[in-house]
Amino acid sequence: MSTTKQQQQPLGPSSWTTRRDEKHSRMQKVESLLKGKVLPTEQIVNALELLIRPGDRVVLEGNNQKQASFLSAALVQVDPEKVNQLHMIMSSISRPDHLDIFEKKIASKLDFSYSGSQSLRMSQMIEDNSIEIGSIHTYLELYGRLFIDLIPNVVLVAADKADRQGNLYTGANTEETPTIIEAAAFRNGIVIVQVNELVDEVPRIDIPGAWVDLVVESDRPYQLEALFTRDPRQIKETHILMGMMAIKGIYAKHNVQSLNHGIGFNTAAIELLLPTYGESLGLRGKICKHWALNPHPTLIPAIESGWIESIHSFGGEVGMEKYTAARPDVFFTGPDGSMRSNRALCQVAGQYAVDMFIGSTLQIDPEGNSSTVTSGRLSGFGGAPNMGHDPHGRRHDTEAWLNMMNGDGPLVRGKKLVVQMVETFQNGERPTFVDSLDAIHVGQEAHLPIAPVMIYGEDVTHVVTEEGIAYLYKAQNIEERKLALAAVAGVTPLGQAHDASLNERLISDGLIAFPEQLDIRRTDARRSLLAAKSVEELVEWSSGLYNPPSKFRSW
Amino acid sequence: MSTTKQQQQPLGPSSWTTRRDEKHSRMQKVESLLKGKVLPTEQIVNALELLIRPGDRVVLEGNNQKQASFLSAALVQVDPEKVNQLHMIMSSISRPDHLDIFEKKIASKLDFSYSGSQSLRMSQMIEDNSIEIGSIHTYLELYGRLFIDLIPNVVLVAADKADRQGNLYTGANTEETPTIIEAAAFRNGIVIVQVNELVDEVPRIDIPGAWVDLVVESDRPYQLEALFTRDPRQIKETHILMGMMAIKGIYAKHNVQSLNHGIGFNTAAIELLLPTYGESLGLRGKICKHWALNPHPTLIPAIESGWIESIHSFGGEVGMEKYTAARPDVFFTGPDGSMRSNRALCQVAGQYAVDMFIGSTLQIDPEGNSSTVTSGRLSGFGGAPNMGHDPHGRRHDTEAWLNMMNGDGPLVRGKKLVVQMVETFQNGERPTFVDSLDAIHVGQEAHLPIAPVMIYGEDVTHVVTEEGIAYLYKAQNIEERKLALAAVAGVTPLGQAHDASLNERLISDGLIAFPEQLDIRRTDARRSLLAAKSVEELVEWSSGLYNPPSKFRSW
Repeated sequence: MSTTKQQQQPLGPSSWTTRRDEKHSRMQKVESLLKGKVLPTEQIVNALELLIRPGDRVVLEGNNQKQASFLSAALVQVDPEKVNQLHMIMSSISRPDHLDIFEKKIASKLDFSYSGSQSLRMSQMIEDNSIEIGSIHTYLELYGRLFIDLIPNVVLVAADKADRQGNLYTGANTEETPTIIEAAAFRNGIVIVQVNELVDEVPRIDIPGAWVDLVVESDRPYQLEALFTRDPRQIKETHILMGMMAIKGIYAKHNVQSLNHGIGFNTAAIELLLPTYGESLGLRGKICKHWALNPHPTLIPAIESGWIESIHSFGGEVGMEKYTAARPDVFFTGPDGSMRSNRALCQVAGQYAVDMFIGSTLQIDPEGNSSTVTSGRLSGFGGAPNMGHDPHGRRHDTEAWLNMMNGDGPLVRGKKLVVQMVETFQNGERPTFVDSLDAIHVGQEAHLPIAPVMIYGEDVTHVVTEEGIAYLYKAQNIEERKLALAAVAGVTPLGQAHDASLNERLISDGLIAFPEQLDIRRTDARRSLLAAKSVEELVEWSSGLYNPPSKFRSW
Repeated sequence: MSTTKQQQQPLGPSSWTTRRDEKHSRMQKVESLLKGKVLPTEQIVNALELLIRPGDRVVLEGNNQKQASFLSAALVQVDPEKVNQLHMIMSSISRPDHLDIFEKKIASKLDFSYSGSQSLRMSQMIEDNSIEIGSIHTYLELYGRLFIDLIPNVVLVAADKADRQGNLYTGANTEETPTIIEAAAFRNGIVIVQVNELVDEVPRIDIPGAWVDLVVESDRPYQLEALFTRDPRQIKETHILMGMMAIKGIYAKHNVQSLNHGIGFNTAAIELLLPTYGESLGLRGKICKHWALNPHPTLIPAIESGWIESIHSFGGEVGMEKYTAARPDVFFTGPDGSMRSNRALCQVAGQYAVDMFIGSTLQIDPEGNSSTVTSGRLSGFGGAPNMGHDPHGRRHDTEAWLNMMNGDGPLVRGKKLVVQMVETFQNGERPTFVDSLDAIHVGQEAHLPIAPVMIYGEDVTHVVTEEGIAYLYKAQNIEERKLALAAVAGVTPLGQAHDASLNERLISDGLIAFPEQLDIRRTDARRSLLAAKSVEELVEWSSGLYNPPSKFRSW
């Protein structure tokens, strides 16, 4: 025996099983309430008070779609004398009760990714010191931290069905549930699952029952938002013009095989232009074959026309259940036939395995930095920064990636296509191109250590506006990048300050292209080019398999 | 009905279930061989010939540790007249039979991550055109592609135990098995699993049986390498000196809370210095609390001394099974008590959720680019580039990350610590610092579109040699980066060309530090500082729980 060891040994902990013992002791307290793993619905508040301790790290599932709404409503009702100082970890702050937890002093600290509809109230609560922000994350880094320094004590998640052994069926909206549960189940955390329905046998097992401690049938189905449904009726001719430019001047030019689309009307327009304008260019089977995205209804015509080989999804989409189940050659589906998604793996794929990310934003500064954080709204990040950057850890090549090479030398490498697609004015009023991002001021007000920038200019390869395309990856220096951006900034102050006499050189250097250079007539950008002009037509394309939520029905 | 739809409709495929139908038809051919999901051991070659078709994409599990060795040996024996032109996807080429598959013309194309011990033969086969390389990847991007453009037809994986319903127990070496299976099971691919043992009930369910099509008991346990075991006897005083510099000049200086260590002797030295030298600096409980790494035996003394709060692992380590099971407060363990790893999630955490990556390399060029690819050896990447770069998608902050800020302005952000730790000469002979990386030439020979660089200079924040530390993140431009590097390059040609009169300025600018600046005496770097000096002492520290493989036993 070394003397070193004898000196050091007493420093170590006296027990190595504190987490396991703690879990065991808490579970014993609810044992009398349970039948196997099943908790009666009306006992949930009582059970949460027995299972959660002050200061716990608690993950509450709130994707941008699926919400553990029964459990969040129950958490608001616990006695703050018994349960307080919680450190909440939530990928999305989407419901009023998510913030009520803090106002009622049940929780004090928050690590999150996205706050969407609650961003205004969140900003106010930060100002009032009623909420302490740890950090704002992308989804993937938040998931990573669940295994490093944000390991949870308790997780509250949602699934469609469970059997009495706790085996879970998530259906199409698998989303982040398996990742959250894995972080707790394998570290002696407590896994509490609300399910829409208890059944004798689940249609398929998405998560094994042994990973789950407690299931509870919710009083109503979990909240699920139709976040990725865009009504074609709202697609304007500006979107169509920009879509045509993107298809010809980016997708076809760089031979983009695999990509992610966000939820904007710009990309919805592209989806609906592929079977018409794209077809007329002879691009079917040549571009846009592999996708990382949710089952967008606006992609139905392209799928039905044979454009799409595969789609892997972060989550599902309300109303697309029957359609995706009927297209297993395209979507990931389980042995039971229904879709399966996986937010963590799709974010990995969206970061590392696709040629292109294309998204929209609210503000862009002269160097191409952008953010959706505007005055008073701390909306967070979601998944965009993860997919909207050039991953330096990527080592495999594709034609599109190699196309972004700029410069000489033996170590030059390719780059991911990161495209921003914006109108020069938001709602025809506020300029998208600004001298300085609001995010800087908002970050300072919220005492964030760095400004909440969504995508940094150095990562952006293209910007598309209704004026034209800036090929930023071709810029040899920051001055060229600024010039190319200003050239497509229209009549915003940035655009008006631009010296148009430089455009000829910028065009010949390949730094910008207007519709004329792309051989596109502005007058050709008509709504008649859309493969579907309404939700009703999407339903027709799907042969009745797509079942849109009632708010999208007008017939 | 829109006319557009009527025009487009005929373009779509006539069936949307070709993959499901194909799987069904192949599975029918082996039905008579199976008892439930169980295939008799001796039928494996026959079954593979019936289940795999020419041109299939086949994933063969070969982590850097666990190998589906029974299945790879069987695949070599199939008739190339029946099964050929396979496109193999393998994270690691580790066994001779992995390349025999190509020599026997069963497979033709390969996408992979790491080739380790087979790198020499691989290079020769590429030269002989007996293998076509798709791309070389990091692990995580290869996993991502399994859901995008490398979706598999058949996967061949390994687990410890299965029951007759196909439920799998992987034990500590869960590794990449769940990720590979998910890509196939939810896309009508065929999942074939070799198991060491068929049992009536598995200790825990790591992968649900419904995701598995066929299990076969292997003739012997799967191959498992003790890749992360470093014998403290081989740690030299140079390693110890460098370790002391790293602890004081990097870990403590930047307050590193979370990190990854690779398999080198340099980092093994650091692990063994924490409970001695680190303790003397009062650093316990202050740094190195959260880890993304395999259960390194050399970390046992630090764990036992109370340094480590959590470890999430890519895989397991031979001999560490009982130890990890007895330390559930530190390691991720399942409801059954044994460890669980997850290579994909740990790579996500290692990329996004830790303060620091520290690794070693074989060559560094004057700008800090590095590679382990040297003449004639196309060794690939593994996970290092994924963890050894600054992820631009990261938005959360930590003290260490903010410490890397360099420059002013409202949009300045932090950076991940990426540390290279190298002796100036490899084995005392070949200089580590070179004018130009061998990787450039090797890449050209193998017709790779870009040079196989492991870590790019712009991502490296620190380089540690036996001479001192270069704080590259402080460099304002590439010239300063080159000077700082040259200053620690010793008597290599690069180091000898350096003008030592500049060092005073480099020191005062914080660009370099020698042991003197860190208040470290070279003569203090003695082996007596190691908390364990042999594998035997590691076993003692573990109270006999660590059970090293026989090749590491000398007592």
